[in-house]
Amino acid sequence: MSEPLRIALAGLGTVGGGVIRLIETNAALIARRAGRPIVITAISARNRSKDRGVDLSGYAWEDDMVILGERPDVDVVVELVGGADGPALALARTTFEAGKALVTANKAMIAHHGLELAGRAEAAKVAFKFEAAVAGGIPAIKGLREGAAANRIERVYGILNGTCNYILSTMEDTGRDFADVLAEAQAKGYAEADPTFDIDGIDAAHKLSILSSIAFGTAIDFRSVTATGIRRVLAADIAQADALGYYIRLIGMADTEIDAEGNRRLFQRVHPHLVHRDHPLAHVDGATNAVVAEGNFVGRLLFQGAGAGDGPTASAVVADLIDIARGDVGAPFSIPVAELDAAAPAETGHRRGKAYLRFSVADRPGVLAEITAAMRDAGVSIESLIQKGRAGDGGEGDSDQVLVAMVTHEGPESAIAEAMRLLEGSPSLSEPPLVMHLLEE
Amino acid sequence: MSEPLRIALAGLGTVGGGVIRLIETNAALIARRAGRPIVITAISARNRSKDRGVDLSGYAWEDDMVILGERPDVDVVVELVGGADGPALALARTTFEAGKALVTANKAMIAHHGLELAGRAEAAKVAFKFEAAVAGGIPAIKGLREGAAANRIERVYGILNGTCNYILSTMEDTGRDFADVLAEAQAKGYAEADPTFDIDGIDAAHKLSILSSIAFGTAIDFRSVTATGIRRVLAADIAQADALGYYIRLIGMADTEIDAEGNRRLFQRVHPHLVHRDHPLAHVDGATNAVVAEGNFVGRLLFQGAGAGDGPTASAVVADLIDIARGDVGAPFSIPVAELDAAAPAETGHRRGKAYLRFSVADRPGVLAEITAAMRDAGVSIESLIQKGRAGDGGEGDSDQVLVAMVTHEGPESAIAEAMRLLEGSPSLSEPPLVMHLLEE
Repeated sequence: MSEPLRIALAGLGTVGGGVIRLIETNAALIARRAGRPIVITAISARNRSKDRGVDLSGYAWEDDMVILGERPDVDVVVELVGGADGPALALARTTFEAGKALVTANKAMIAHHGLELAGRAEAAKVAFKFEAAVAGGIPAIKGLREGAAANRIERVYGILNGTCNYILSTMEDTGRDFADVLAEAQAKGYAEADPTFDIDGIDAAHKLSILSSIAFGTAIDFRSVTATGIRRVLAADIAQADALGYYIRLIGMADTEIDAEGNRRLFQRVHPHLVHRDHPLAHVDGATNAVVAEGNFVGRLLFQGAGAGDGPTASAVVADLIDIARGDVGAPFSIPVAELDAAAPAETGHRRGKAYLRFSVADRPGVLAEITAAMRDAGVSIESLIQKGRAGDGGEGDSDQVLVAMVTHEGPESAIAEAMRLLEGSPSLSEPPLVMHLLEE
Repeated sequence: MSEPLRIALAGLGTVGGGVIRLIETNAALIARRAGRPIVITAISARNRSKDRGVDLSGYAWEDDMVILGERPDVDVVVELVGGADGPALALARTTFEAGKALVTANKAMIAHHGLELAGRAEAAKVAFKFEAAVAGGIPAIKGLREGAAANRIERVYGILNGTCNYILSTMEDTGRDFADVLAEAQAKGYAEADPTFDIDGIDAAHKLSILSSIAFGTAIDFRSVTATGIRRVLAADIAQADALGYYIRLIGMADTEIDAEGNRRLFQRVHPHLVHRDHPLAHVDGATNAVVAEGNFVGRLLFQGAGAGDGPTASAVVADLIDIARGDVGAPFSIPVAELDAAAPAETGHRRGKAYLRFSVADRPGVLAEITAAMRDAGVSIESLIQKGRAGDGGEGDSDQVLVAMVTHEGPESAIAEAMRLLEGSPSLSEPPLVMHLLEE
């Protein structure tokens, strides 16, 4: 096993540069741990002439990155191009056709085409690994696929998007509002120019769909993940949550349930939650990510670390390469694709829990009566309620607006949905209510 | 790979019973994930007739557990007998001699004989795995050996003993004193009748020596771990730490350094620390364990979960079995024993940091002057100092005693040691000072 493992690298952006730096910087210890050297032989990117601050002269260049998978001097292709389709997908298919292994950080491609690609990898008896696709440098996939492998996983959830967590924890620390903090995050490079994928929860949904497939042995099903982002969270919500002993975090949550016909169904939701301050996720601040897996024997496991960035992501990519160098050719989703269950999406209505509801209402008589009547008629029991002027929002023009925030007693989500339906279109509400679920200790 | 992996189980205590329950309860999903069934064929324990609440009639019984390793119907021996030497060690040697794999939760045996056993396993080309030996159900060894494998590990540390963490966090929550909380923990079964190994830090030292070997590629060296337990921590210390923004935790800490001759040296210490409230370990409460690894690319990784108990420990044991069923026969300490460095123990004197010092002194004039003069003469700079009556201790007879607690500015540990030397034997001190290091954010 002393022959080098030969890598081709497609994509030389931030993470690609990080992988090159890591493989060069830690070459000696990687060879000791992997049992053989890991070397880059060929590279490709969209633009050859761009200065990337690393010396690329030692590596063969391919203008057409899809060719990388066919090179005879390559054992593993590392795909860091991104995008669910296009060149990344073409490269992945070519790589497996050529009987070579693939390592990728491409969560969108796995969420959309993971089953097809895993099937191709299994047919070719080669490795297909994507630790870097979920939670950056954290070995969350390994933790689920191997560390917790003896357990029936009851649920898997976590803070899966560093941009959202940075924005929420900065709002928390400073009392500033969403748009303001987002603009600052963009200026600092913590958020993309087009932040939609992050702040609307799509990136977290990609990652959640991967985690839930491995945790539950179900076919990956990104399309059934319901995702709500953090755009509508106000500084006032954060202050209100804090007063109640909670922190607001965007949580991706997945579990399975048995329906009335005895079939297993898959629940997958990305949603801002009020996280109890005694829950370990409450203290995950800044761009940090964290994944929790609850197993029937191990109890609650938490994996926490940097969710993005060139160093952490490169760490996860190269950990996969070391596994491959050591001979790991396991099923990408823990069990073979053909054996994954095709679970239908779960109904959410009978899920039980507490919820935080926040209404922006006109400051006039009868509004509170209308809201509380809707709650009563829908069977929602209110645990606490607070009404305050919308000062926390900092807006000048909406001084006739007040916020009504309440926390419900534990009850079925269907009752909340019914209350929302009853209030739909009410002229008293200046915008649709914001519903957030509570994650208790 | 559809033939079952056949297990022999030595030791049927709490964890052994948990392994049987787990393998029986989760048999179907284990077979799916492992690619083949994992079945128990033979068992052994000291006392055959004891009622363990599980049906053992389906398993062959051996009175002499060492025979388990030689049975032709066994692929892997699971050793859950405990003890650094004796039957556990004999069984481990026999197992490798017979060319079979070994899984164990026995931290003491690995701390003392891990290198010898790993050498035997490597010679026999069989697996030797011990995830359950460190931090119970947390896949901390896997996290270091595989998840963080691409990184030079800067330091590895954590909360490695659930009994101590339970006692400290209960003292914190209730304001009660050590002896009182220990007695309660013993009554509840959270602490052993003889708690020495736990509360004096020896158990944590066993675990730390295993983690540091894997993290740094150094030969396991339990004997050079310095260990101080938590017996001398007072409720008053916890209150004082809290006022400063810290929580007291027993931390096992390891790193390496290059000495003046250019040789790498290994630092390993178990010691109660003041942990800053913004450090993730500050919020690890109760019997929970947590391991932090800081890598040169990944940054800070945290692995947290149940550090003991039959379910979590069984989860780690069976995770090892699944790895073996999947074909993993890697080097037990990440790199082969012959390639591990023999690092000499580090000197601690030039380590720099802040420290908390607490003195129990007679309440009479001049004592504070004596202590602060010793600090000045040793070059220790004091950041804050508080003197108070020993009320927090609850003792009736020592009302003439006062506590003087201080936090130093950052400086070399050698200066603290010198100050302690200057005060040694002083009639003003009713007991030796307590020194705790600070773990900053």
